[in-house]
Amino acid sequence: MAQTELVFAALGGIGEIGMNLSIYGVGDGRRRQWLMVDCGVSFAAEEHLPGIDLIMPDIRYLIEERKNILGLVLTHGHEDHMGALIDLWPRLNVPIYATPFTAALFEAKRAAEPGAPRIPVNVVPLRGKFGLGPFAIELISVAHSIPESNALAIRTPVGTVVHTGDWKIDPTPLVGSVTDAARLSALGEQGVLALIGDSTNAIRDGRSPSEADVAKTLAELVRSAPARVAVTTFASHVDRIRAVADAARAADREVVVVGRAMERVVQVARETGYLDGVQDFRSAESYGYLPPDKVLALCTGSQGEPRAALSRIAEDEHPDVTLGRGDRVIFSSRAIPGNEKAVDRVINGLVAQGVEVITDRTHLVHVSGHPRRGELLDMIGWVRPKVLIPAHGEPLHLSEHAELARRAGVPQVLLCRNGDLVRLAPGKAEIIDEIPAGRLYKDGTLLVNAEARTVAARRRLSFAGVVSVALALSDRGVLVADPEIELTGVPETDVASAAMIEIARQSVEEAFQSLPKPRRRDPDSVAEAVQRAVRSAIAERWNKKPICHVHVLVV
Amino acid sequence: MAQTELVFAALGGIGEIGMNLSIYGVGDGRRRQWLMVDCGVSFAAEEHLPGIDLIMPDIRYLIEERKNILGLVLTHGHEDHMGALIDLWPRLNVPIYATPFTAALFEAKRAAEPGAPRIPVNVVPLRGKFGLGPFAIELISVAHSIPESNALAIRTPVGTVVHTGDWKIDPTPLVGSVTDAARLSALGEQGVLALIGDSTNAIRDGRSPSEADVAKTLAELVRSAPARVAVTTFASHVDRIRAVADAARAADREVVVVGRAMERVVQVARETGYLDGVQDFRSAESYGYLPPDKVLALCTGSQGEPRAALSRIAEDEHPDVTLGRGDRVIFSSRAIPGNEKAVDRVINGLVAQGVEVITDRTHLVHVSGHPRRGELLDMIGWVRPKVLIPAHGEPLHLSEHAELARRAGVPQVLLCRNGDLVRLAPGKAEIIDEIPAGRLYKDGTLLVNAEARTVAARRRLSFAGVVSVALALSDRGVLVADPEIELTGVPETDVASAAMIEIARQSVEEAFQSLPKPRRRDPDSVAEAVQRAVRSAIAERWNKKPICHVHVLVV
Repeated sequence: MAQTELVFAALGGIGEIGMNLSIYGVGDGRRRQWLMVDCGVSFAAEEHLPGIDLIMPDIRYLIEERKNILGLVLTHGHEDHMGALIDLWPRLNVPIYATPFTAALFEAKRAAEPGAPRIPVNVVPLRGKFGLGPFAIELISVAHSIPESNALAIRTPVGTVVHTGDWKIDPTPLVGSVTDAARLSALGEQGVLALIGDSTNAIRDGRSPSEADVAKTLAELVRSAPARVAVTTFASHVDRIRAVADAARAADREVVVVGRAMERVVQVARETGYLDGVQDFRSAESYGYLPPDKVLALCTGSQGEPRAALSRIAEDEHPDVTLGRGDRVIFSSRAIPGNEKAVDRVINGLVAQGVEVITDRTHLVHVSGHPRRGELLDMIGWVRPKVLIPAHGEPLHLSEHAELARRAGVPQVLLCRNGDLVRLAPGKAEIIDEIPAGRLYKDGTLLVNAEARTVAARRRLSFAGVVSVALALSDRGVLVADPEIELTGVPETDVASAAMIEIARQSVEEAFQSLPKPRRRDPDSVAEAVQRAVRSAIAERWNKKPICHVHVLVV
Repeated sequence: MAQTELVFAALGGIGEIGMNLSIYGVGDGRRRQWLMVDCGVSFAAEEHLPGIDLIMPDIRYLIEERKNILGLVLTHGHEDHMGALIDLWPRLNVPIYATPFTAALFEAKRAAEPGAPRIPVNVVPLRGKFGLGPFAIELISVAHSIPESNALAIRTPVGTVVHTGDWKIDPTPLVGSVTDAARLSALGEQGVLALIGDSTNAIRDGRSPSEADVAKTLAELVRSAPARVAVTTFASHVDRIRAVADAARAADREVVVVGRAMERVVQVARETGYLDGVQDFRSAESYGYLPPDKVLALCTGSQGEPRAALSRIAEDEHPDVTLGRGDRVIFSSRAIPGNEKAVDRVINGLVAQGVEVITDRTHLVHVSGHPRRGELLDMIGWVRPKVLIPAHGEPLHLSEHAELARRAGVPQVLLCRNGDLVRLAPGKAEIIDEIPAGRLYKDGTLLVNAEARTVAARRRLSFAGVVSVALALSDRGVLVADPEIELTGVPETDVASAAMIEIARQSVEEAFQSLPKPRRRDPDSVAEAVQRAVRSAIAERWNKKPICHVHVLVV
C-alpha cells in the first residue's frame, strides 16, 4: 500500500499580496482529503485591469476535487482572505469554519450583497479545536489589524503544520488578543514539520510599534485639533476604531460614522463585544448639527476609493459632511501599493480646501498588521519548523523571508509558486506536481477567466477606440445604401484637416471601389478590405489602429 | 497713461508636478510683452488616461499673444520643463534660449523624433545675461539632477523676480555647478520683488544628502558585488552616470550602456564635456562577451517603463543582457508617484530570477534633485523676497511651502493656480485675472483637448466594451437581411447559459418586432429602440451597459 503523504499548495497568495487560498491534503497520492484555508480576493485597481473590480483564484482544481474537501477554515475576516467566498462557495458547497467576529462580518457582508446565496458558517470559538478527517485543527490567537485573527496548527498523521495567516506581535492591542507565544512555543516543543508564514513585511527591519502607541498619537492629534476632525482608516480595523472613539471621548467630541463599510463593521463589532464600553456613535446626518469642536467624523476612503466617504468630502460632494479651513484630517492608514496616486488625489483635494492633512509620513498614526523581520525571527524561534515556506507576499518579500529563515537556521526553506504541489512529508519537502492555478476576474456580475480575451480587448479599446461600419450590398455586389460609420474613442483631427469620420468614409468608399467586381459579391472579402482600409487610413493620420467592426448586409 | 505692471502666470506646474510653463508679462494691461519660461510635459501613466502618453499645457492664450512673446527660456533639460516643445513650438515660433547641455539634449531628442520640425535654439552660456525687451535675464547656476540647471533672475522696470526652476543644495556634486548662493544673496541685497519657487520636496524636513554620498554608496555596492551588476537611474542624471562610471572603474568593470535614452544622454554629455576623463563605455552587444565580474550594465527603466531595458531584462526578454542568480541590480532612483506598481513588477521579475535588488529603501543610492525644507529656508534667506509664490508642486506641496515661507517671515505669500494672472507690481501682489489654461493630451500623433470626449469615451469602452449592430430595412420598414452583431470587450456568459451574442441577437429582434409598424419605417426610431434593448439585455446578465453602435441602412 502507498504511503500516506501530507501535501500543501497555494492557489493564491504566493507571489502576490492578496487572493489567499491554501490547501492541505492527506492521502496516498491517488486519493487525498483536503482542507482549504481562506478564500480571498485581490483588488484589480492595483493591476490596471479596466472594468475589473476583483481578482479571485481559479478554483477549477477544487471543483474537481470537491467531494474530497472536508472543510474551509477562515483565518480572519479581511477581504484578501475571505472576499471570494460569496462568489466561489456556491461552486464548492463545503463546510466553512470561522470564529464569531469573522462569521458575523461575513454574514453582514453577504446580506448586503444583492442576490447573494445563503452560506452557512460553522462558528468555532477562539482557541477552538476541531477535527476534519485526518486533520486536527487548532486555532491559535494572533495579533493583527482585525479582531480574531488566527494562526492554525494543523495536525495530521504525518506531521504538524503551523499556518500563520496574517499576524504581528503587539503586546498591547486595544481590542482582542495578543499573539499566543506560549501556545506556539508549546507546539514547537512537540515538533512542527512546516511553517507556512506571512511574508508581507519581510523587507522591514525591526519590530512593529503597538496599537497602543498609535492610540496615544491619535488622542493627542484629536485633542489639539482647533476645529473639526475627520479620521479615516481601514473599515475592519476595530482596534483603530476603538482608539479613535477613545480619543474623541477624551476631547469631548461625538463620533460620526461616515461610509457604509464603516457602519457595517461598527455594528458587527458591537454585536460581538469588541466595542463594549465604547460610547454610542452618531449617524452622518447628525454631523451638520454638531459644533466643529464637538465632532469627529470616522470615514471610509483611506485608500482613495473614489466613491468612499473621504473622496466625496475632498471633492466637496458629500451630502452630509463638509470640511474646510482649520479642519484636520488624519489618515490612520497607509496606501496599499497601486493606490498611491488615488490617495494623493484625496489629500490634494482636502489641502486645496484649506484642510490640514496628517499622515503616517510625519506622525505615528498607523502601523501595519504584518510582522517585521524581528517578529518573523520570533515566530521561527517559537515554532522551530523543519521546513519553512514563505507565503503571503510578492517575490521580493518571499525571497527576503526565505533568506532570513535560512540565516536563522531553519533546516529547509522552500520557495514555491501558486499551483506548486509540495509534499511536506514523508521525507524532504519537495514540489512533486503542479495543479491548475490561475485567476478569475469579477467583471460586472460575471466571473471571467484571466486568460479570456475580454479584458485584453477592452485594453485595446481603451488605447485606440473603435470604428464600426455597415454596408448594404445587393447580391450582385452593388452598394445599395450609403455606408454608415460610427467612431468612439477616436479623436477628431486638427481643425484644419478633414474630420476623422470623413477620413474613414473616404477609405471605405475607396476600398470598395478598388475591389475587383467579382469580389464585391463576397461579403467576407468586402468586410476584410474595408476593415484594412479604415484602420490604415486612421493610422496614417493618428498612428494608432482602432478596433474595427465591419458589417456587410446582403439584401 | 496707464501704469506699467509686472504680471506672472503659470499655464502648468502649479497644482501638479510636471508640465511646467510660466509666463511673465510687462505692460500696461492693454498690451503686454511676454517672457515664457519652460515648456514641459507630464506623464499620463500617473493619471490613468488610457491611450495617452503625455500631457501638455493648453497654450491657446499664448497662440493669441504670439506676437507679443519675446522669447522662451529653458531652465534645464528635464522633460517636465522642455518635453512639450517639439509639439507646441511650431504653433508659437518664438526664439528659444538655453544653455549648451540643454540645447544639445533638446536637439538630440528632436533629431530622434520622426517628422519633428527643425527648431532653432539660441545657446546662452552658464551665468549668461541677455535682454529681451523690458526683461533683463540672468542665469544663476543651481544644483539639480541634470547638468546646467538654472534659476532665473528676471529684472524689469518695475522689479526683479527670481524664478528658481528646479534646484537643491549640493556642495559636492560630481558634475556641474553648485547652487550659486553668493549671486542669489547679492540679488537679495539689491532687492527682490518676488520668488517663484520649486515646492516638490516642501513636505520633507532637513536637507538633501549630496551626490558625493550617493557615489560613495554606489562604489561600495559595485565593489562588493559577487557577479554581474546592473544600475538603473534617470537617463538624464549625468552626475549619477559619472558616479556609476567611477564605481565601475574602481572595481575594474566595463560599463555597458543599455537603452536608447541612456545612449543619447551619454553622447550629449560627452560632447558637452560633462563626462570628460570618464572611461569609454561599451555597447549592449558587448555585454555577453564580458566575464560577470568585469561588467556593469547601466540601464534605462528605473520607473518600470515596460519597454525600457530593465523591464525587458526582468522579463528575460532583452536581446543582449541577461541577469540571474548572484547578480545585483541597483535602483539608483525612486519611483515617481503613480509608477510604484510598475517598479514593483520589475523588482519582482528580477527577484524571481534570483537577482539581488538594492533600492533606496535600504541604501543611500538615490537623492532627490529638489530642495527640502532646510534648503527652502536658505533660498528665502538669500533672496529675501517681498512676495513668494509656491510653484512646481501638488496642492499639498504648495501649501507646505507657503506655510514655511510665512513662518520664515516672507511678507506676502500667494497661493495660486494655473491660469491665475498675478500682478506682482506695482502694489501688493494679487490675482487680477484668469487666462485660459488647461491640458492637451498627446494621443498618438494628435493633440487633443483634455475636455474632448475622446478619452472619456475610451474609458467607458475599457469599462464595458462595445456592441455594434447593423440592420437593413426596406423603405416599408421590413427587415431585408439578418441583423449583424459584433461584440468586443464583453464577456461570454457562463457555459450553461446562452452566449452573450445570442442574448444581444434576441434583444435586437424583439426590439424590432415590438415597434409599431409605422415606426419601423423610421431608421432613427429603430436605431434607438435597438440600442436601448441591446444595452438592457446585456446589463441584465452582466450589470454593465456597453457602448452600442446601431446602423440602420434603408435600401
